Amino acid sequence: MANFDFKNLYLINPCELDDECYARAMHAGNIIDEAKIFTSFEKAVEKIDFLAATSSIESSNDKRHLRNAVDLDDFSEKIFETEGKIGLVFGREDIGLLNEEIAACDLMIRIPTSENYLSLNLSHAICVVLYSLYLNRNIKAERRVIDKVEKEKLYKFFSQILDEINYPDHKRENTEVMFKRLMGRSIPSKWEYHTLMGVFSKALKKMKKQK
Amino acid sequence: MANFDFKNLYLINPCELDDECYARAMHAGNIIDEAKIFTSFEKAVEKIDFLAATSSIESSNDKRHLRNAVDLDDFSEKIFETEGKIGLVFGREDIGLLNEEIAACDLMIRIPTSENYLSLNLSHAICVVLYSLYLNRNIKAERRVIDKVEKEKLYKFFSQILDEINYPDHKRENTEVMFKRLMGRSIPSKWEYHTLMGVFSKALKKMKKQK
Repeated sequence: MANFDFKNLYLINPCELDDECYARAMHAGNIIDEAKIFTSFEKAVEKIDFLAATSSIESSNDKRHLRNAVDLDDFSEKIFETEGKIGLVFGREDIGLLNEEIAACDLMIRIPTSENYLSLNLSHAICVVLYSLYLNRNIKAERRVIDKVEKEKLYKFFSQILDEINYPDHKRENTEVMFKRLMGRSIPSKWEYHTLMGVFSKALKKMKKQK
Repeated sequence: MANFDFKNLYLINPCELDDECYARAMHAGNIIDEAKIFTSFEKAVEKIDFLAATSSIESSNDKRHLRNAVDLDDFSEKIFETEGKIGLVFGREDIGLLNEEIAACDLMIRIPTSENYLSLNLSHAICVVLYSLYLNRNIKAERRVIDKVEKEKLYKFFSQILDEINYPDHKRENTEVMFKRLMGRSIPSKWEYHTLMGVFSKALKKMKKQK
C-alpha cells in the first residue's frame, strides 16, 4: 500500500496486529496504526460508494460471479473516471470472499493469470491491483527530455564518421536511418546526447588528423 | 511464476530448498524442482542474450544506473518484439544487486512506485514484473533478434574508440554503461548491430592508422 500511495486500510476481524505484523510492514507501520478495524463486512463498507472485489476463481461460486468480471487493466483505467469512495475488497487468504460478500460488490476484477495456475496469493493479488491502479493515476511525469538541436548534431557527427570511413553510397541512407531509429527507440537524455557527441567528435577529430 | 506462465528459474547460491520452500510454492513445486542452481552470476547469465535488471533505487549507486531506466510497462511492450533468451535479474531481498551485476545488464527496469516508499520487497517486485509481461504476452510484432556475441563485440568496439581518443579514466565507466543502456533501451536487431559494428570498426581502423 505504501509503495503505491494507498493509505486507508480497513480490516475486518483481523488477526492480532502484533510485532510480527509491524516487522513485515517494514517502513509502513503507520498504515497499520491508522487502519480501521471492523467486526463485520457490512459495517466496513457502509460508507463506501463503490465496491470492487477480486477473488480467485477456484470455487464454482466465484466462477459464477466472475463471468462478468472486468480485466484489471480496464478497471484501473475506468475507475478514475468516477467520483466517490472506492473500496477494493480482498478476501481471506484461504477461502477468499463469501458468496454474499461478492454479491455486495459492484464489480469483480479479474487479474489475468495462467490457466494452469489461476489464483495468486492474497499479498500478490493486492500488490498487482495497487500497481495497476498506481500506473493509471500517475501519468509518467519524469520523461526524458529530448533536445532537438543536440539530436541533430549527433546525427550529423554520425554522418561525418561515415564520410571519413568512405562508407559505400548505396548503403549510406539505410545506415543513417538505422542510427536514427536506434536513438529514437532509446530516447536519449540531454546528458546522453552530450556524452555520445563528445565521443564522436573526438573520434572524428582523430580520423581527420590523418589526412 | 506459475501464475504468469514463467518456467525457467535460475538461482544463484540460494538458501536450502527445504520443505518450507515447497510449502510456500503451493502448487508450483515443479518450478523449484526444475530450477537451475548456479554458483556465480557470470555462470548463470552465460547463455542469456539480453539481461534486464530491477533494483530498488535506495542506494546512490542504483540512482546513477537507474537514471535511464525504462518503465516496466514500456519494457513489457518492447521486449516481446525481440527474439533470443531474455533474463530477468532480481537482486537479494536485503541488498539488491551489486554494482557490477547491474553494470552487466543491458537494461534497468523501473517499477513505478511512490516517492515516499520506493522499494518493493523481492516477491512483490517479481510478481509485478511477471504480471506486466504476462499482460503483453500476445504482442508479437516483427521480432528483433538479439545476439549476445555481436552485442559484446559492439560494446568492445565502443570501448576501443574510447581508448583511441584517450577518454578520461574517471568518466570511462559511466560512459560505457551509458552506451550499454542506450543500446539496451533500443534493443537493436542483429542487422543493426552488424551495421553499427561495421561503422565502428572502420572508424577504429582509421584512428589507429594515425599512430
